[in-house]
Amino acid sequence: MINTHIIPLIDIHIVPYIVLAASVLALSFAFIFFKQMMKEDEGTDLMKKIAAHVRKGAMAYLKQQYKVVIIVFVILAVIFFLMSLSGMQNKWVWFAFLTGGFFSGLAGFFGMKTATYASARTANAARQSLNSGLKVAFRSGAVMGLVVVGLALLDVSVWFLVLDHFITDANKMVIITTTMLTFGMGASTQALFARVGGGIYTKAADVGADLVGKTEFNIPEDDPRNPATIADNVGDNVGDVAGMGADLYESYAGSILATMALGASAFAMLAQNGGEVGQTLQLKAVFAPMLIASVGVLLSIIGIFLVKTKEGAGMKQLLGALSRGTNTAAILITVATFGIMYFLFGNESVIKVGDVEIDLSNMWWQTSLSVVVGLLAGVIIGKATEYYTSQSYKPTQKVAESSKTGPATVIISGLGLGMLSTAIPVITVGVAIVLAYLCANGFQVEFNATNLSRGLYGIGIAAVGMLSTLGITLATDAYGPIADNAGGNAEMSGLDPEVRKRTDALDALGNTTAATGKGFAIGSAALTALALLASYVEEIKIALTRVAESDGMAQITKGVEWTIDKVKDASLVDFMQAYNVNLMNPVVLVGVFIGAMMAFVFCGMTMNAVGRAAQKMVEEVRRQFSTIKGILEGKAEPDYERCVAISTKGAQREMLVPSILAILVPILTGVILGVPGVLGLLIGGLATGFVLAVFMANSGGAWDNAKKYVEEGNFGGKGSDNHKATVVGDTVGDPFKDTSGPSLNILIKLMSMVSIVMAGLTVTCHLL
Amino acid sequence: MINTHIIPLIDIHIVPYIVLAASVLALSFAFIFFKQMMKEDEGTDLMKKIAAHVRKGAMAYLKQQYKVVIIVFVILAVIFFLMSLSGMQNKWVWFAFLTGGFFSGLAGFFGMKTATYASARTANAARQSLNSGLKVAFRSGAVMGLVVVGLALLDVSVWFLVLDHFITDANKMVIITTTMLTFGMGASTQALFARVGGGIYTKAADVGADLVGKTEFNIPEDDPRNPATIADNVGDNVGDVAGMGADLYESYAGSILATMALGASAFAMLAQNGGEVGQTLQLKAVFAPMLIASVGVLLSIIGIFLVKTKEGAGMKQLLGALSRGTNTAAILITVATFGIMYFLFGNESVIKVGDVEIDLSNMWWQTSLSVVVGLLAGVIIGKATEYYTSQSYKPTQKVAESSKTGPATVIISGLGLGMLSTAIPVITVGVAIVLAYLCANGFQVEFNATNLSRGLYGIGIAAVGMLSTLGITLATDAYGPIADNAGGNAEMSGLDPEVRKRTDALDALGNTTAATGKGFAIGSAALTALALLASYVEEIKIALTRVAESDGMAQITKGVEWTIDKVKDASLVDFMQAYNVNLMNPVVLVGVFIGAMMAFVFCGMTMNAVGRAAQKMVEEVRRQFSTIKGILEGKAEPDYERCVAISTKGAQREMLVPSILAILVPILTGVILGVPGVLGLLIGGLATGFVLAVFMANSGGAWDNAKKYVEEGNFGGKGSDNHKATVVGDTVGDPFKDTSGPSLNILIKLMSMVSIVMAGLTVTCHLL
Repeated sequence: MINTHIIPLIDIHIVPYIVLAASVLALSFAFIFFKQMMKEDEGTDLMKKIAAHVRKGAMAYLKQQYKVVIIVFVILAVIFFLMSLSGMQNKWVWFAFLTGGFFSGLAGFFGMKTATYASARTANAARQSLNSGLKVAFRSGAVMGLVVVGLALLDVSVWFLVLDHFITDANKMVIITTTMLTFGMGASTQALFARVGGGIYTKAADVGADLVGKTEFNIPEDDPRNPATIADNVGDNVGDVAGMGADLYESYAGSILATMALGASAFAMLAQNGGEVGQTLQLKAVFAPMLIASVGVLLSIIGIFLVKTKEGAGMKQLLGALSRGTNTAAILITVATFGIMYFLFGNESVIKVGDVEIDLSNMWWQTSLSVVVGLLAGVIIGKATEYYTSQSYKPTQKVAESSKTGPATVIISGLGLGMLSTAIPVITVGVAIVLAYLCANGFQVEFNATNLSRGLYGIGIAAVGMLSTLGITLATDAYGPIADNAGGNAEMSGLDPEVRKRTDALDALGNTTAATGKGFAIGSAALTALALLASYVEEIKIALTRVAESDGMAQITKGVEWTIDKVKDASLVDFMQAYNVNLMNPVVLVGVFIGAMMAFVFCGMTMNAVGRAAQKMVEEVRRQFSTIKGILEGKAEPDYERCVAISTKGAQREMLVPSILAILVPILTGVILGVPGVLGLLIGGLATGFVLAVFMANSGGAWDNAKKYVEEGNFGGKGSDNHKATVVGDTVGDPFKDTSGPSLNILIKLMSMVSIVMAGLTVTCHLL
Repeated sequence: MINTHIIPLIDIHIVPYIVLAASVLALSFAFIFFKQMMKEDEGTDLMKKIAAHVRKGAMAYLKQQYKVVIIVFVILAVIFFLMSLSGMQNKWVWFAFLTGGFFSGLAGFFGMKTATYASARTANAARQSLNSGLKVAFRSGAVMGLVVVGLALLDVSVWFLVLDHFITDANKMVIITTTMLTFGMGASTQALFARVGGGIYTKAADVGADLVGKTEFNIPEDDPRNPATIADNVGDNVGDVAGMGADLYESYAGSILATMALGASAFAMLAQNGGEVGQTLQLKAVFAPMLIASVGVLLSIIGIFLVKTKEGAGMKQLLGALSRGTNTAAILITVATFGIMYFLFGNESVIKVGDVEIDLSNMWWQTSLSVVVGLLAGVIIGKATEYYTSQSYKPTQKVAESSKTGPATVIISGLGLGMLSTAIPVITVGVAIVLAYLCANGFQVEFNATNLSRGLYGIGIAAVGMLSTLGITLATDAYGPIADNAGGNAEMSGLDPEVRKRTDALDALGNTTAATGKGFAIGSAALTALALLASYVEEIKIALTRVAESDGMAQITKGVEWTIDKVKDASLVDFMQAYNVNLMNPVVLVGVFIGAMMAFVFCGMTMNAVGRAAQKMVEEVRRQFSTIKGILEGKAEPDYERCVAISTKGAQREMLVPSILAILVPILTGVILGVPGVLGLLIGGLATGFVLAVFMANSGGAWDNAKKYVEEGNFGGKGSDNHKATVVGDTVGDPFKDTSGPSLNILIKLMSMVSIVMAGLTVTCHLL
């Protein structure tokens, strides 16, 4: 069991139980908010009927998706099980992998269930006032936020307690944390399927509905005469809600798990040679990200309760209310971080292990600074996202203006904007990496094993800081689609146009607050992926240890053989040298090329998938318009079900290949190019994927809002040729911002996770 | 002077004179072809007048561009001169830099001059037959091809002789070859300005002319009533001809120079410790790329003469004639390579230096195999390019088909196609890198300094092989724009539509053969950039030597100091370890991020530049259509000059910022992040830039040909809504394939060149 020392007041081994308590707290509040929402009136019979339609379609899709995903999971679990039998992996992996996937899927499922119940209720509440609408929508978004963090912390705490009980190795913390990373792979796999499948579904329906309805027949969005309307609204739920839930579960859990692993490895040497003091220190480094996340849950709930205004509040007050919630949570977590770090590391002093002497007396505030760096980077990226994608600023206005010369210039200027917009996020992440690294290792520029591993821990904990208040930031993100769907419901039920205006206002409001949330998500994905690189090398070490234990010696690379002791004592830097993971090694360079390519090919596949599925939808909608008599006059009901079925089928068929590619490429790279090739692949994928993701998200966002800007009455307004040109931009932007772009964040991490889990295979068999 | 040994028949030091002779040969044939072309009849008075218009506009633009470029060159030369005074660079650099820029510009200038004289003559010849048209256009393209290779070999041979005479250092070959790389920087700088400026010019005019003329007023391409027509034709010359000339001069010279430098460094140890045998071996390694290129000139000329058919030949025979020329040259160079290598290395055996024993008896055929690998890779990439961009194949046909659902799906499917199309080129380059590396080092997988440097030399020589027959492959590329312009001339002069059909056929023919040429250009750019990475480290070594000579010790990085002897003896691998250029170093990772970002930001800037300049053109054309009475009826002449002026001004203003950014970012990265950061930057830029370039070129090509496919009568044919949708794709594709995409290839290498030249600064002062 865990030993403790130094901190006199509280026994350190209570921390996993604190995490468990935080998890229960989050889930309880999610349940309360859900019950509150369900008590609201769902409105007229027509509203109820439409909501039921959407709910049914969404659940039907999710069921289909899970069927496919379950097959993939079972196959992978069997492979992992076989690997554990042959000693290439430990016996926990296959099961941990399954729980990660299960919880990630569950987060999406609960979020979507809530959203589909909330949309009609939000529309109905919006009949009274903007504020009532916000309350219902936002609290429903909060359900999703709290479910995600609650389930993640549940998985983390329970697994930690279980593994802590069963694993007795001398190097136990490293083994526990790297094993736990494999449930990260489960979450990533699930998230990728959810994002890609949901993204294809929603955009096929959206693009299909828009192309025929808006462009060809000039009927408004969400018009009940359009056969693809229900599918479009279903899509919002399965893509923007369920997909996002699984995605952020993965990000959140991934950042915590990666940082725990980095903490374990940074102090592994101390733990093995430094007696109880060293072991406790390592334990505390592992606990720090868990504690920050747990406190973040509490602060998120406080933030959620701060989001309220007086009845009759205007847009500005509502925005103020939302910002108050997220900003308060962010400021409090900053303060709390210093408190947590002081609680953990406030009593440290100089530690001596053998010849090495490490001064840890400043560790508490130095590590806290890393968290502050992460938070600031998230804010800057969020602001930059807002600047480039909001119609309140020049860039998007210029895209709108370029509609004066037709759709081609809208596309060119939108692509140009997106490409330029990558500069600030990349530079910010670059500076954050360096600063978080330097803060955490006590500002040591010199490159050596100790400074490196402590610095990497800082990068990881910065990512955890970014995501610590996910409970509330996700709420501000998730209520947007709910408001969007409420608008659809209002339109289809023929409610007063004023109601639609209110839901549109809520949606627009959500876009602004969501920009910040996206900044945190993107930034944390980059930092987490970096942290996973180090975990990969750590896993290589474990795999080599296993090989050396059975064979006596471990073959590192051509011409280099190590004894078991050498493997065990080797640092990250030693591995870099032994494996020649430097930029002159052609194998590394080839890996980088393939990684860069993977990001593009993956996007190309998902873009084409949306194109193909949308085309089928367009044909079906056209067919219905031409064969069902009276449909355009509103006298005959369109066949909604058929459109839902087309999107479902399209998404199911199309999501498989890109997702499986994301799993296969790292495995093949490992088997052919070995460890240096895999590290090249991960870096190439990370750098290109990150930049490509920012580009696609921002181009897509700018096109969307440029269209809205024209609709607001600029450059000719709704129905003008300029408007049509911006609709083309918006349509192209749909797969950019909602399918390919967000999937990239998951792809990056999934490739790392796969490499980590497959490290045993790479080590024992590789061609070069 | 050069010493020689072993080869009994010919004195090895004659090689630079062979290169000089090859250069004179190329330039002489260029002159002969030029004179032949000038003897042709230019046609009717109207044809002459239009050609004169275009010529005047093109020359006026080039003059303006050179004015701006000269200022940049003077500033940079002064900086290099000052650096040489402070010992950070040697005294030759500033002047070598200028000659590189001068010759690169000259290649573009001559090529463009020829093209502007050839267009009316091609149109006139096409009045007789397809074959006559081809002959004039192709021979004019050959002028460009031969001028490019002739000037490059002139610069290479003269500089080599000069430096060989003056430099007497023990390490002279390394110093000579790395000094010569700096004229590569001059060529790259000039090429970037020419590509970016010319690309913005041509696409602003093209997009502007199409958007108003074709889309709004439904008048055909190149119609004399369109005020932007002359500007459009001028653009073809300054962008597609002058820009391409400067670009390929840079690629060609760059690959030779980089490989010479790699050859010098691979055998530097032998040269210093192995006596005369070692020195001769090093010399021969330096000479090999020069010799391959020289023989390539001869084979290109033979190939050019093979391009002829009987009078009355159809398209198929013409294609056969072109392919016969390029294929024969390619096959002959393969055979010749084995001959050259046997001549150089056929007598080598085991060499012993100190304890090291290297078996070089198989070197001649092993190195030859690297060249074959390069050639094969070029062919595969070319075929893949053709598959993805030709309307004879499914991918482009599918893009055309997606026009049934409007412009948005054309854009989505074109982007998807481009992204997917990156897979084959990247995998091919990856395999080629590994194979060229392994062939050249005798199939040694083990990673050590000797294997590495010989392997890198193989990668470089593969690139040289790819470009060795540039004389003819460039001819097949460059005659396309000439035919295009001939078509414009025919249209504007009101010639028989049959003539236009013939020039269009020639243009289409050119597209097919050019695909292969592009494959070689793209592939060689990636390999050359890789070779430049190694040259960068070599230059770092020289810079450190200089520092150590003045201070006694050289500070490598924080905590590492080296004596001068240690610097001199250090290998590439030693430098990787000393500078910690591994994938765990956060500084390297930040560099990779910034490199990936640079590719996107650079494209964003050039895309936006085209968008802005095109918008100005659209406004001007619209203004003329509405204010000049009788213009649409052909009764009043449009104000062509004004459109020319708008493009000129737009290009000049817009090319400056992206080009200067490409120079500044590597310098700033060096000063802030130091050597590991720069290497990260170069790799990130190379990988992302390469993939992005392939994506943009192929998307653009596919859109262009999808439009042509519809125009050929598919999916509704010309004038249909589907056609309009594909025109939107074509317009977006214009900056993709002719501005941003091709500029990326230069950007990648320019950043490496700048880093190489600025190595002295990076070594002496850096923040991290």
